[in-house]
This record gives sequence, structure tokens and C-alpha cells, in this order.
Amino acid sequence: MNPIITLTSDFGLADHYVGAMKGVISRICPNAKVIDITHEIPLFNVYAGAYAISQAAPYFPAEAVHVVVVDPGVGTSRRGIAFRNQAGGTFIAPDNGVLTPFWPEQDRLNVRELTNESLWLSGHSITFHGRDLFAPAAAKLAAELIGWADLGPPVLDVVRLPNLKAVQGRGGQWAGTILSVDRFGNVITNLPSRIGLSPGFAVTAAGHEIRQFRRTFGEAAPDELFVYAGSSGYYEIGINQQSAAERLGVVPGHPVLLAVSA
Amino acid sequence: MNPIITLTSDFGLADHYVGAMKGVISRICPNAKVIDITHEIPLFNVYAGAYAISQAAPYFPAEAVHVVVVDPGVGTSRRGIAFRNQAGGTFIAPDNGVLTPFWPEQDRLNVRELTNESLWLSGHSITFHGRDLFAPAAAKLAAELIGWADLGPPVLDVVRLPNLKAVQGRGGQWAGTILSVDRFGNVITNLPSRIGLSPGFAVTAAGHEIRQFRRTFGEAAPDELFVYAGSSGYYEIGINQQSAAERLGVVPGHPVLLAVSA
Amino acid sequence: MNPIITLTSDFGLADHYVGAMKGVISRICPNAKVIDITHEIPLFNVYAGAYAISQAAPYFPAEAVHVVVVDPGVGTSRRGIAFRNQAGGTFIAPDNGVLTPFWPEQDRLNVRELTNESLWLSGHSITFHGRDLFAPAAAKLAAELIGWADLGPPVLDVVRLPNLKAVQGRGGQWAGTILSVDRFGNVITNLPSRIGLSPGFAVTAAGHEIRQFRRTFGEAAPDELFVYAGSSGYYEIGINQQSAAERLGVVPGHPVLLAVSA
Repeated sequence: MNPIITLTSDFGLADHYVGAMKGVISRICPNAKVIDITHEIPLFNVYAGAYAISQAAPYFPAEAVHVVVVDPGVGTSRRGIAFRNQAGGTFIAPDNGVLTPFWPEQDRLNVRELTNESLWLSGHSITFHGRDLFAPAAAKLAAELIGWADLGPPVLDVVRLPNLKAVQGRGGQWAGTILSVDRFGNVITNLPSRIGLSPGFAVTAAGHEIRQFRRTFGEAAPDELFVYAGSSGYYEIGINQQSAAERLGVVPGHPVLLAVSA
Repeated sequence: MNPIITLTSDFGLADHYVGAMKGVISRICPNAKVIDITHEIPLFNVYAGAYAISQAAPYFPAEAVHVVVVDPGVGTSRRGIAFRNQAGGTFIAPDNGVLTPFWPEQDRLNVRELTNESLWLSGHSITFHGRDLFAPAAAKLAAELIGWADLGPPVLDVVRLPNLKAVQGRGGQWAGTILSVDRFGNVITNLPSRIGLSPGFAVTAAGHEIRQFRRTFGEAAPDELFVYAGSSGYYEIGINQQSAAERLGVVPGHPVLLAVSA
Repeated sequence: MNPIITLTSDFGLADHYVGAMKGVISRICPNAKVIDITHEIPLFNVYAGAYAISQAAPYFPAEAVHVVVVDPGVGTSRRGIAFRNQAGGTFIAPDNGVLTPFWPEQDRLNVRELTNESLWLSGHSITFHGRDLFAPAAAKLAAELIGWADLGPPVLDVVRLPNLKAVQGRGGQWAGTILSVDRFGNVITNLPSRIGLSPGFAVTAAGHEIRQFRRTFGEAAPDELFVYAGSSGYYEIGINQQSAAERLGVVPGHPVLLAVSA
């Protein structure tokens, strides 16, 4: 079976950066299948990187190695880490919180710090760890040229992004955040759709109160803002064939509130 | 031989959507080669999707499975279909006309409706059929986990896009449409280049009359609008190293006329 | 081992052009791994194409075949060529200078002109050599369906881009050019970082004099323009988490000067 390595970054596709990473991988692990998740994460936006990989990784085989390079701290003392998920998947990333969606609440994590000098590309830079550290580490793991313990020592604490999860108040209402706006202008919140919506609910974002729930886009009236249970596992806000984000005037990071009637 | 699955969509490359589809495919058909045609079809533009896949599919092996997800009707009663072309190629798409370039004039089509419940990803959404229905159906076919008849019942009628083909009038003139404007600003019409251009021809678009034919860009005078037989099999309008579309002020869907002298 | 073919072009990803090239390759060399370097080279910009492929190719296995299609002269008498590098790598491109970074100073080059009629796709166009000549030639080489001498006769002279390398003046100062501005706004010069910076150095671009050297982004003061030895092997100009190119007001092609103190 060919090992799978996925790539997620803010490198864009106009420069040679992603191509160079794939070259490095092809030399170390020639039979790897390299699959792009996206390289258009907004520059340095660790939250957006966390959202993208958390949405894509669960659909891959458990043996896949996921490389995530959104790395505002490259060249500083921020650590490089590798993580193995109980639910499947190996992750290679800077330790800046970009893997937060995968951190369990418990203390014990299967995380290693990438300190082994032999992981690095020879003659490596200090500004392009994607090519010089993360890609070779992933390829060596995927090719089984090294074992888990060869990566470096265990890490006992990791950086966690704050406010990634919506929280429920005493009155039952939820305070959340907008995680993403997709190409269609759909607004993805971090309100999990498993909580359910009672009759009389209201979702508020940027001063707009939305009280319509639609199962799907085709059920909505033209021009109507509505809430639906999205493919992300979260409630999303949409308008059929228009941009809900533009209508609302929201961007990722903006707050969103879910009020439930008594 | 590794099965080939191509992907064409309006999902863009900034979100995780294409990555998630590739994850689904990699779990069901690990040895598939997945090849992107484009994911930058203008939002919901079924005509543009039809043009892209009609231009790319003929260059692939006959065994390839082509998934086309431009799907303004996702979640409505529009059907999902699979189609096998006599000329080669299997296609998976919503039944919204996006496969029109492949429909023969005859009545009998080798089309199935995707009704088999076991095609769906478990716990599937109703807004992301690309990930939850079309990708798994394609992967199961490519992996030969299911046969053609397992997809669902035969479809006797299909949605056809109107006005996709240029029509010839009594006087010999042709009335056509602009199919696409490419990154270079070249204007692709639906006037088939096999019809030939007689001396004294004139192509009219947006009020501009173009009477120059050039075999290739290098033959054109600087700044000159000209007609050439494009790589698409259609007549195209260009200017050497400039955007003909901007000069003309046209976009896909605009009419174009070919007049032939008597 | 699966042969590797890389693709670099100015075709963009919105059209079907890259997909069609991959189709052609998949029919001729089904087990090839096709890897995109970038398809967002600015239109017709041979310098940018030369920079991208020169940065990516060295990271690939020596057996890789690199196809570079930035081709303002398509359809003219400009030649198509293939080149084998002593350091590894086979290159297929128009003879317009896009391979200049790989040309050694010496006269003898292992270059062939693509004159063999059997290289072409049958029924080929004269405006899309990427699909109809360069892709099939690369795939036939990669699949070992043809040998090196079958491509065509040796080429004794090649087109070379002027001013690609920085030059040192009598006083020790260097006159260079800006090669690229990346997605982060970092400014890549053609001043090789192996020349070293003496204390008292000054890099001048667009009237700004930069005297700060930083090893890495994290060492820079907020808002500070600084010079660093980039992952490209050249000196680059950056600002931590901002666009140095915007601040300086420079684009590729602009001059840059390195003065050294006496």
C-alpha cells in the first residue's frame, strides 16, 4: 500500500514552495501519494489551518501522515512536533496550536518534539521548515525509515488555541465563533449541530438575528438567510446561491450567539 | 493498472472540500490516481463545467471515471447520475445538464440514477454530495467494489442544456455563443473550426466585427483582434499577448455571429 | 519505480489546460507521478518561470522529467527543446531562455530539438504545445518509449536570458535584480547568499537603504525591513508578518544594489 501524506499550508500555489516540498518527499519516500488539502490558508492564520485539517483528516485512512505548515513563528524557538491520534492519523506541524482540534482533554498526549538532527534536509534554511524539516520528517515516517521514538523526546504540554469551542451559558444559550467563510459565502460557526435547535431559536451574528432553519438550500426562499446543519458538523448560515458572509458582513473570528427559547 | 478518477468542480482550492473528497476516495480505492481538471468553475455555472469536462475528458484513458460537481440544486430532488460513454469514459454528476456535451442525439443512453443507499458515506450530509455521494460512488466503481447495475435503475431521460451548440441559419450564417474566456483572455466560441472560414467571413461579438484570420498568435500584428482555430476545436478570438475578452467586453454566454460572404 | 514528471506553466488552474496535459500523460505513461510546481507563473513571464523551476527541480530525484511551458512564442518558429542536466533532471521546454538557470557556461550542452514528428499528439493544434508536444514528449521519455536521440538533432546554441545573474563591480559592490515576490511579500533578489555580508553593508531597492541583517523573522523588530539569507539561496528582504514588497514598492525585474563598506 502506498503511504499517504497530506499537505495543508498558507504557501499559496503561485510560488515554488509546495512543489519543492513534494520534491523532497519524492526523494525520501518515492511511493508516497501526496494529497493537497489546501495551500490557501490566509497568511499566518492558525485558526483557519486548524479548521481545514480538522475537517479533512477524518476522511483519510488512519495510516495517513498530515503535514500542516501555518507557521508565523518559523525560525523562533517554537517547537516542531509530531502527534499520533488515537482515532487515526499522524500529524506533523509547528507547536502553535494548529492541531488543537485533535487535542483530547486529557493530559497524556502521544506527541514528540522534532529534535533529531537527522530529520533535517542537509544544508537546510531557517525560514522554510516546510521543505527542510516537516516534509522530510513526514516522508521518513511514511517510508518507515525512522520509528516514532526516533523523532525526538515526548512532549508533555502543547500549545492550545483558546476559544476554539463554543461554550454554553447557564441560561442554555451558546456563545460561539465564526470558524470559516467558504468560497460560496457560507458562514461556518463552531456551534455543533448535534446540540439541536429548539423551536423559537435565534442565531445572532453581526447584529442580524436569524430564526429560519432549513434542511437544505433548495428549501430556502430566495434571498432568505437561514441556518442549516452543515457538512462540517456545525451549524452554518447560508443564502441560496448568494454569499451569506457578505450579507451579514462577517469574517472568521467574529462572535455568534445561539439563543434558545424557554 | 491504477484506476484514474478526475475531479471537476466549483469548490475552489481555498477550502477543505476537495481534500475531503480525495480522502474519501483514498479510503475506498487506495490505488486510484486522482487528477484535478479544475475546481475554479465559476460558482454554480453548469455551462462552464460542461465546457471544462468536455475539453479534458477526451485526453484520458477510456477507463477513467470523471466526477463533475457543479451543483446548484444540491439537496433538492435533482438526481445524481452515472453515465458511460461509447467513446470511453465514465461520468458521475448531478443531472443538471453538466454532461450535455456527451449526450448523443439518440434516445438510448447508458445512464443510471444513483439511488443505491449503500453508495453514500455513512452519516452523510445533505449539502455536500461531492464528498458524501459522488466521490464514494466513483471510488466504488473504480475499485470494482460494485458493478454498473448496482448504481441504480436506468435513466431514460436526462437534463440537456439548451443553446450549447451553434446553429446554422438559412443564409449560411452561424449563430453561436461564447463558451469560455481563458486565463489569457482568449475568447472561445462554440463555432466548430471544422466548418471552415470562407474569404470575406466576419465574426461579430459585442458589436466588434473581426475579419482577420490568423493561423497562430505569432502571425498577428500587434494589437490586432483575430480569429484562429483554437486547441478546443472551436474558433477562438485573440490578441497576441493581450486579453481579447477585455478588448471586446465579452463574457461567457454572450452571443457571437459568423457571417459568410455570398 | 514510478517515473516523475513535473509541470510548471502560466496556464492557471481555472481552465482545463493543465487537466488535459495530465490526461495526455496518463495515456502515454500510466504509471507516471505528475507533480505541479506551479501554474500561476505571471502570463508570458519567462523570468518568473526560470526562477520557479530553478528553485524546485534540485529537490527532485535525478530521474525526474520537468516540463516548463511559459511560451509567448507558441506557434512561431521558436524551437521546442529537451535538456539533460549533469546534476540530474531532464527538462522539456520552449527554447526561449526559461531554462537559463541550468545552462552551464561551457559551450557543450546536452540539448536536443523536438523535431521528431512522432512526438506530437495526432491532430494536434498549433496554439497548445503544452498538451500536444511537450506533454507527450515528456511522457514518452519517462515511459522509455523513445530514447534521447529519438527526440531530434542536437542543439548547439540555446537562448539565454540576459541579466539573470548579479554582477560584481570593481569596488566590490553588486548590481542585481529582484527575481520574485512571494505570497508573503518577501522580496527575493539574485544576490547569492554565499557572498556573505560584511559589517556596514547596505542593500538598496527602490530608494530604500536596508542595513539590518537578521538570521530569521523572529529576530526582527516589528515593522523592521531587514535582509536575510533566504531558503532560495539568495538574499531576501522581509518584514515580519508584513509585505516587504509593498513597503518598498518593488516588483520582479526592479534593480537592487549591494554596497559593501571599505
